[in-house]
Amino acid sequence: MLKVGVVGATGYAGEEVIKILLNHKDVAITELSAIIDKEEPISSLLPIFKGKLDIVCKKPNVEMASKVDLVFLGLPHKVSMEIAPAFLEAGKLVIDLSADYRLDADTYEKWYGTSHKDIANLPRAVYGLPELYSDEIKKAKLLANPGCYPTGIILGIAPALIGKVIERCGIISDSKSGATGAGRKADIGLIFCEVNENLRAYKVNEHQHKPEINRILSRVAGADVDIIFTPHLVPMNRGILSTIYMKLVKSLDTKDAVEIYRKFYDGKPFVRICDAGKFPQIRDVVGTNYCDIGLKVTASTLIAVSCIDNLKKGAAGQAVQNMNIMCGFKETEALL
Amino acid sequence: MLKVGVVGATGYAGEEVIKILLNHKDVAITELSAIIDKEEPISSLLPIFKGKLDIVCKKPNVEMASKVDLVFLGLPHKVSMEIAPAFLEAGKLVIDLSADYRLDADTYEKWYGTSHKDIANLPRAVYGLPELYSDEIKKAKLLANPGCYPTGIILGIAPALIGKVIERCGIISDSKSGATGAGRKADIGLIFCEVNENLRAYKVNEHQHKPEINRILSRVAGADVDIIFTPHLVPMNRGILSTIYMKLVKSLDTKDAVEIYRKFYDGKPFVRICDAGKFPQIRDVVGTNYCDIGLKVTASTLIAVSCIDNLKKGAAGQAVQNMNIMCGFKETEALL
Amino acid sequence: MLKVGVVGATGYAGEEVIKILLNHKDVAITELSAIIDKEEPISSLLPIFKGKLDIVCKKPNVEMASKVDLVFLGLPHKVSMEIAPAFLEAGKLVIDLSADYRLDADTYEKWYGTSHKDIANLPRAVYGLPELYSDEIKKAKLLANPGCYPTGIILGIAPALIGKVIERCGIISDSKSGATGAGRKADIGLIFCEVNENLRAYKVNEHQHKPEINRILSRVAGADVDIIFTPHLVPMNRGILSTIYMKLVKSLDTKDAVEIYRKFYDGKPFVRICDAGKFPQIRDVVGTNYCDIGLKVTASTLIAVSCIDNLKKGAAGQAVQNMNIMCGFKETEALL
Amino acid sequence: MLKVGVVGATGYAGEEVIKILLNHKDVAITELSAIIDKEEPISSLLPIFKGKLDIVCKKPNVEMASKVDLVFLGLPHKVSMEIAPAFLEAGKLVIDLSADYRLDADTYEKWYGTSHKDIANLPRAVYGLPELYSDEIKKAKLLANPGCYPTGIILGIAPALIGKVIERCGIISDSKSGATGAGRKADIGLIFCEVNENLRAYKVNEHQHKPEINRILSRVAGADVDIIFTPHLVPMNRGILSTIYMKLVKSLDTKDAVEIYRKFYDGKPFVRICDAGKFPQIRDVVGTNYCDIGLKVTASTLIAVSCIDNLKKGAAGQAVQNMNIMCGFKETEALL
Repeated sequence: MLKVGVVGATGYAGEEVIKILLNHKDVAITELSAIIDKEEPISSLLPIFKGKLDIVCKKPNVEMASKVDLVFLGLPHKVSMEIAPAFLEAGKLVIDLSADYRLDADTYEKWYGTSHKDIANLPRAVYGLPELYSDEIKKAKLLANPGCYPTGIILGIAPALIGKVIERCGIISDSKSGATGAGRKADIGLIFCEVNENLRAYKVNEHQHKPEINRILSRVAGADVDIIFTPHLVPMNRGILSTIYMKLVKSLDTKDAVEIYRKFYDGKPFVRICDAGKFPQIRDVVGTNYCDIGLKVTASTLIAVSCIDNLKKGAAGQAVQNMNIMCGFKETEALL
Repeated sequence: MLKVGVVGATGYAGEEVIKILLNHKDVAITELSAIIDKEEPISSLLPIFKGKLDIVCKKPNVEMASKVDLVFLGLPHKVSMEIAPAFLEAGKLVIDLSADYRLDADTYEKWYGTSHKDIANLPRAVYGLPELYSDEIKKAKLLANPGCYPTGIILGIAPALIGKVIERCGIISDSKSGATGAGRKADIGLIFCEVNENLRAYKVNEHQHKPEINRILSRVAGADVDIIFTPHLVPMNRGILSTIYMKLVKSLDTKDAVEIYRKFYDGKPFVRICDAGKFPQIRDVVGTNYCDIGLKVTASTLIAVSCIDNLKKGAAGQAVQNMNIMCGFKETEALL
Repeated sequence: MLKVGVVGATGYAGEEVIKILLNHKDVAITELSAIIDKEEPISSLLPIFKGKLDIVCKKPNVEMASKVDLVFLGLPHKVSMEIAPAFLEAGKLVIDLSADYRLDADTYEKWYGTSHKDIANLPRAVYGLPELYSDEIKKAKLLANPGCYPTGIILGIAPALIGKVIERCGIISDSKSGATGAGRKADIGLIFCEVNENLRAYKVNEHQHKPEINRILSRVAGADVDIIFTPHLVPMNRGILSTIYMKLVKSLDTKDAVEIYRKFYDGKPFVRICDAGKFPQIRDVVGTNYCDIGLKVTASTLIAVSCIDNLKKGAAGQAVQNMNIMCGFKETEALL
Repeated sequence: MLKVGVVGATGYAGEEVIKILLNHKDVAITELSAIIDKEEPISSLLPIFKGKLDIVCKKPNVEMASKVDLVFLGLPHKVSMEIAPAFLEAGKLVIDLSADYRLDADTYEKWYGTSHKDIANLPRAVYGLPELYSDEIKKAKLLANPGCYPTGIILGIAPALIGKVIERCGIISDSKSGATGAGRKADIGLIFCEVNENLRAYKVNEHQHKPEINRILSRVAGADVDIIFTPHLVPMNRGILSTIYMKLVKSLDTKDAVEIYRKFYDGKPFVRICDAGKFPQIRDVVGTNYCDIGLKVTASTLIAVSCIDNLKKGAAGQAVQNMNIMCGFKETEALL
């Protein structure tokens, strides 16, 4: 049994990692920590775990590095890069769910407003999108788990971009996210009555996930890609739906597009392409690790609609998928 | 035109007072204040008011007392009693939406955990439930606007208690509230994902509105009443539905009960009693100042279901109703 | 007092028309009808009106045409065009909230799947978007009230298109609507658990509001416009937010764009343009007749975000605004 | 592998049975049926199953009885009793999620408005509440799976009633349910905008689950019990919270009550009793098969708050728990 620790166990992503791992046959959760006032059993902090997991959730501590084989860091950005090095030094596998290891140091500083604190380990970080990078992931010691928006958006664009059927320029992603995407934090803009019966665009083309998307799409295209990205906050707990508009450079119909995407994701267990004429909805992916994609060609535009559960494929589920690949477990273990 | 100020203008109750007053023909809003970082037009702080009200919302200031004829205090409890005296000294009318003037000093200290800071004015405060106390309200200088739960619960019990058809003992109110009842404040328990798709009882029989309910019902009954009160938080913005269970001391049927309630509220413009066999729902009172009550007799129990909009009849609407009575305006002005 | 009738009084738009008219000083609601099993007071069918409006809601009847001065038709499309002629013949004003008089007969047949039943009156119909067509509206006898999506989208594009700062081609509107937009009808896809905690795109670039948008934008541009339009269903009751992407043909910055839009809507009481850097949200327009628009220029793209309450500016509110203009009342009467 | 069929596969309970069984190691889903227009793979009807379960969902058919070892009937009441006999005759195990086998024939006729169609099998039916009747369940051929409300309410009352610490008379259950409880059916009262931002009591003390609750509690108490039961519809998808008020006949404090309940449910894997002073919330049981119960003694009243997921412990989860017991599988298999 792999001994696993979760740092940030009381956040939404940390809670979800625990839920998934409780059904994983090759793993034992042995250590938990979080920024809390008092060390208590996790089942007191999160009563959903009563009777299922009663180990104590500790305050952040360096001793954990010597006690586990692998750690999930479910921390806000800027905090992860101060904690990851201890685990790496101790030779442990690190799966970081924050943004800290997803960008180069300069881009990170520009978008996250602080200089990077662990430049030494940055080049070792592998971007954990298994549908694109499974070979690198197999060998990763430090895994940068993708952001929630980037996961759904990149999966929705990559086949068309790699297949060279669309222009690199002018790609638009109009994305809509449920509120767990903002994390479990006390913020006046996130309280129930400010989100419920409301809808808003935010950080219009200025969201910090934009450089991450651009970085991976540029790598994929072999040339600079700079998308237009508008995130919106929707009154629901979970799920991201991205409606993506791409300019075709070839004459295609919808069935051709479906064929290209199906071929691209052939053998990938967590991407499902809808039949021509059908589109996915959040309800069909919530609670699963799937990314569902629907496609439509209209004149010279390819529209792709991608849906994920932001806490599963967009965070904890993908993190476990990455662990499965890194550790040689079955890729789908605990995820179906 | 009556010059009116609103203190706590950016809270949910303050915002609602403003919305109502903008349609009031006898009133001009001339002063606003709130605990804010920077003084700005209210339409910048609350964009819903753009083009409708653009006066500056100031930080709390004593000068307001000399500039208005009447002030609404939409403040957390404990703060109101520090601000009300200045207005009263200046001879201005005060309508306090907090709990600070609803109880005697000892009960206040016991339930709110602090000694009362304005004992001198406490005896002058009139409890602003117009369906019971309109004569006192007409003469009030300091008005204690009822709590949201007490409003719906007292209106649901008073006719039966005064009519002596129920026992004073063992009255149960099982109440369900929308989330604006908790105010606009950053609290981890109030963020969207903790309230949405969730339901919980809280402060079971220990809510601070219990002594307020008991005080008024005891006054009404002429003897001690001590109810059992369980509030619940429901994933909706507005509304309180209280399901009240009372032991009958007389043999009644549902039609008799409807008759008793209708007679009691005859001429009261904001209470509507459902026909026998019908029950109210939140949807029918949201956005209105009505309290709707449905009744059913079953064996020896009288069940009353009362519905209000917690920000209207449960707070701002009732406050304006009280102002109308205090100032000799039409009782329903701006409220229909 | 203008005698007004509402046909389709129990639908969401009809209910909203009644709510607004109850506060209108120049109007009396004298007739109501709807497709119902039994004729009852409207306050029995919709208890929110208890004590406010108790006239009987009748089954659809031709006698109404002789009893009112003006009628609002809150009916599904295909039904309006069978009822409107009787009112027009009787010399009464007709405000139709359905799609029946918004398109030419051929386009109507193509998108609504049936031939038009009142081709004679079609040319007399005036498209009721007051910010563009107030002169025609003043003289209208038959008013085609705009669709909910078209209202927000056209208002978000018109200034840029008329100002010739954008290309006519490739305009994209990614629109998100609350569920009242689908009407009050029993449909398995609209039940609570299918909409709540869900989000979906539907009728991708095939929605019947598309030809309406194209028709008006083409008229405005003086040349064919064919937008890409993706509607989405969001788990909230009210509101439409459209995120619109337009290709600039001139070098502009965000402040220039704000200036162009503000100039265009100068003197229009129901359009509010956000300051540069700010965007509207549904919460700020719900319950109002405003259309709020936020703008951002990014490289060669102009992004406009427009918000309306689909039942107010998107239906009943705009219908009353049109009535006010047609009848010489104050444009904002009952709407502020 | 046990061959299992699900009748009513596209209802909320049927869908949930399938979800659970997909993770069950001893079971294979081999047959599905539902009232549908066209026979299609279940993954077309419910896309959440794409890639996980692709067998065809048939129209209701008698052949299924010969092809499976056990069948779950996820049907409306009145339909189950017409289908169950064929499976029983073929010697197959039947787990019925409807109300058809929960009452005696007379009570059934009185509350469900139709005479019972399968009186022959009625005496064989075992009431499937494992915490009370596991011995009978082990031997059951025809299992009547409890209603959603009865499950949470009976579990919340049984220990106090059996322990003889409360009066049999005057027990009140004020219950609040999410909307999946009403099933997946097109009904104007269930559409999103009628449920969202709304709350209502319904069938006040007249709900058809009342005789079921009374029957089991009477059996448990050895004397007639007749509770007062008020169900409410809450704007959330899943979960039932029941707040239960019971008159104490003994002097107890809250810790005593917790002790009594813990002792009663000792060894029962799916009931969790909160520590004194704590209460459960829906969030902590949604997605699980747990019933969480919180307790408080106040003067002479015992308040119990019980929470379940209405589709898990209140329907599909309990049905699988019953199958596990009937078939000798581990009681918690596929449910943790």
